[in-house]
Amino acid sequence: MRRIYLDRNAGTPLHPGALEAMLPFLKERYGNPQSLHGEGQSVLEAVEDARGKVARLIGAAAPEIIFTASGSEANNLAVKGMALAGRAKGAHVVVSAVEHLSVLNAAKSLEKFGFRATLVPVDGSGLVRPESVEQALTKETVLVSVMLANSEVGAVQPVAAVAKLCRAKGIPFHTDAVAAVGMLPVDVGALGVDALSLAGDQFRGPKGGAALYLKKGTRLVPQIDGGIQEGGRRAGTENVAAVVGMGRAAEIALAGRAERELRLRGLRDRLIDGLGRRIEHLVVTGPKDERLPHHASFCVRFVEGEAMLLSLDMKGIAVSSGSACSSKSLKASHVLLAMGLDHATAQGSVVFSLLDETTADDIDAVIESFPPIVERLRRMSPLYEAYLKENSR
Amino acid sequence: MRRIYLDRNAGTPLHPGALEAMLPFLKERYGNPQSLHGEGQSVLEAVEDARGKVARLIGAAAPEIIFTASGSEANNLAVKGMALAGRAKGAHVVVSAVEHLSVLNAAKSLEKFGFRATLVPVDGSGLVRPESVEQALTKETVLVSVMLANSEVGAVQPVAAVAKLCRAKGIPFHTDAVAAVGMLPVDVGALGVDALSLAGDQFRGPKGGAALYLKKGTRLVPQIDGGIQEGGRRAGTENVAAVVGMGRAAEIALAGRAERELRLRGLRDRLIDGLGRRIEHLVVTGPKDERLPHHASFCVRFVEGEAMLLSLDMKGIAVSSGSACSSKSLKASHVLLAMGLDHATAQGSVVFSLLDETTADDIDAVIESFPPIVERLRRMSPLYEAYLKENSR
Repeated sequence: MRRIYLDRNAGTPLHPGALEAMLPFLKERYGNPQSLHGEGQSVLEAVEDARGKVARLIGAAAPEIIFTASGSEANNLAVKGMALAGRAKGAHVVVSAVEHLSVLNAAKSLEKFGFRATLVPVDGSGLVRPESVEQALTKETVLVSVMLANSEVGAVQPVAAVAKLCRAKGIPFHTDAVAAVGMLPVDVGALGVDALSLAGDQFRGPKGGAALYLKKGTRLVPQIDGGIQEGGRRAGTENVAAVVGMGRAAEIALAGRAERELRLRGLRDRLIDGLGRRIEHLVVTGPKDERLPHHASFCVRFVEGEAMLLSLDMKGIAVSSGSACSSKSLKASHVLLAMGLDHATAQGSVVFSLLDETTADDIDAVIESFPPIVERLRRMSPLYEAYLKENSR
Repeated sequence: MRRIYLDRNAGTPLHPGALEAMLPFLKERYGNPQSLHGEGQSVLEAVEDARGKVARLIGAAAPEIIFTASGSEANNLAVKGMALAGRAKGAHVVVSAVEHLSVLNAAKSLEKFGFRATLVPVDGSGLVRPESVEQALTKETVLVSVMLANSEVGAVQPVAAVAKLCRAKGIPFHTDAVAAVGMLPVDVGALGVDALSLAGDQFRGPKGGAALYLKKGTRLVPQIDGGIQEGGRRAGTENVAAVVGMGRAAEIALAGRAERELRLRGLRDRLIDGLGRRIEHLVVTGPKDERLPHHASFCVRFVEGEAMLLSLDMKGIAVSSGSACSSKSLKASHVLLAMGLDHATAQGSVVFSLLDETTADDIDAVIESFPPIVERLRRMSPLYEAYLKENSR
């Protein structure tokens, strides 16, 4: 049975072109870029070339790119590193309530160093209002972090507006753009951000290759101390193959971006419309317009997300019921709860995130397969039974 | 010209068997191990299989292995994570003066959180004396970290003895075994350590795959917050290919270890003897016996390390003049200075670290090529000129 993989959020297939670029560094080019001999120096050139390519994807300058091993590490480096760098000024950070756990928990971890963290609420579609951020700012605020796009509900946040009001007050601003880079047009200058996280495995680069953009002159306390790699901002031997693969993937992602966005947007709308017509009590989560082009997310009332996921899996369709980073905690998503959904509804979360290769036939297969699964699960659902009783009176 | 690569310390060539194991995870097996669908679960199995293999290499249990992206990250996680976990008890850490920069600078970084760090001195061959560690301990000490082997001078430290005295006082003990694992027999039980860092790229695994062994029950504050990966001890999407490659490399390293050690020991002694006979004013740095089997290190008096390195590079021989993590800082090595060498002598450092593939012919080629280089560089050396003048009086 051919599988239909609709869990791009959990990581994209590595692009064959990126793998091809990586292979020499998994074979004969094993030098360490910090070594002064020929083997090291030739590898260093490849690392710096990749740095330039990643920088170009987001309109940055190469020295503003700090390679990390994951988006989570980039988020930790930004949140802790920038907050600690501002400690003399104050000990207050502001993050949105729908951030990825790597931002939320990093902010929370700062509490043990005397920081206070304020969570900015979102509206029912998961969007942050710039005014809400503004209200949360104090004279002690040394960092604001609001994500560019949310991988659970697809919401694309008004980051430029938030960055602008932070800039006006001289407060450093970070955005977690892991779910957006490669899919949306992202330009650090236009956004006006001081720092931005991205992960190669979200745009067909390898796992293990990610980066933090840090605007020239922005202060940062390193989180991995040691050698002088990454300009002394992140120690550890460079994962050369991953960096090179991410660089090539960045180039490929940039070249095909506009067309990919258009195509996936069409498929996504086909999926949302198709399921909306066939499944009752279906809540589309996240905004209608300010939404990631490849992203369709729902809460299916009276059904558990995990049960749907496993049933779809048996039909050959891979989806998620939230963030891969918390999939096994089986707790209702903090994102859906922050949007005001009740626990029971939030438990019925299912997220379809489309690959570059996803076809209209794939989408139609989902539209065929999913409604009977929902129907079957609802027949076994005590919640649904209670609902029917309630409404038959 | 065939190159002779003698900079194993900076990273080994990836074993073809490890690459073979990785390739499926760079192609069709792109799932995220945290995902509940089939693509995720099959990848999770591979990650857990690799965890078992890495554990076996050091006599640990699989759940005691925390994957990281580098030895430096593992060292940071241990030093900061264990120290912060013990903060309620005290705020003092003890590390040796010859630790890798990722341990030294991590310990130093704790100062901004109110910790004090004591550096334990070493003797002239770079060895830590357990009594010196004991003297440094106070009632406030919450972590001791002494490396298993030093990559600059090859010194193999008396870790079991140090671990024993820490255990007697109930003080958590970490060892940086990055330079040792895969080369020396390493068993966490026999060593009696609470935590141990290792890096796959030191035993023919890929860059980007490393780990911290954390003995069951040992407390740790995570350093990358976020999702529930690695049992909540290190967030971030697993670098599946790197983990799998490291697992396979661990298996291969374990199988061939004893024979490799014996063979490299012979080649190493041939190199030390050969150069000793042909180069005057040559200081062998590090211990004679308690030394890494693949490791020969020297200070060549009246010559700069970088000049030797670059001259050897032009002759097709790749070596280092210290740690790759600080090669570009051009400062005299903190390790050599801690051993009591003067600045001028320390600047003449050159390190040969042998690969599995290194042959007796390679060694003989070095013994042929190196003395004339030293001679040529000394002819240009004002230090040597001054020495000759001094001694001709």
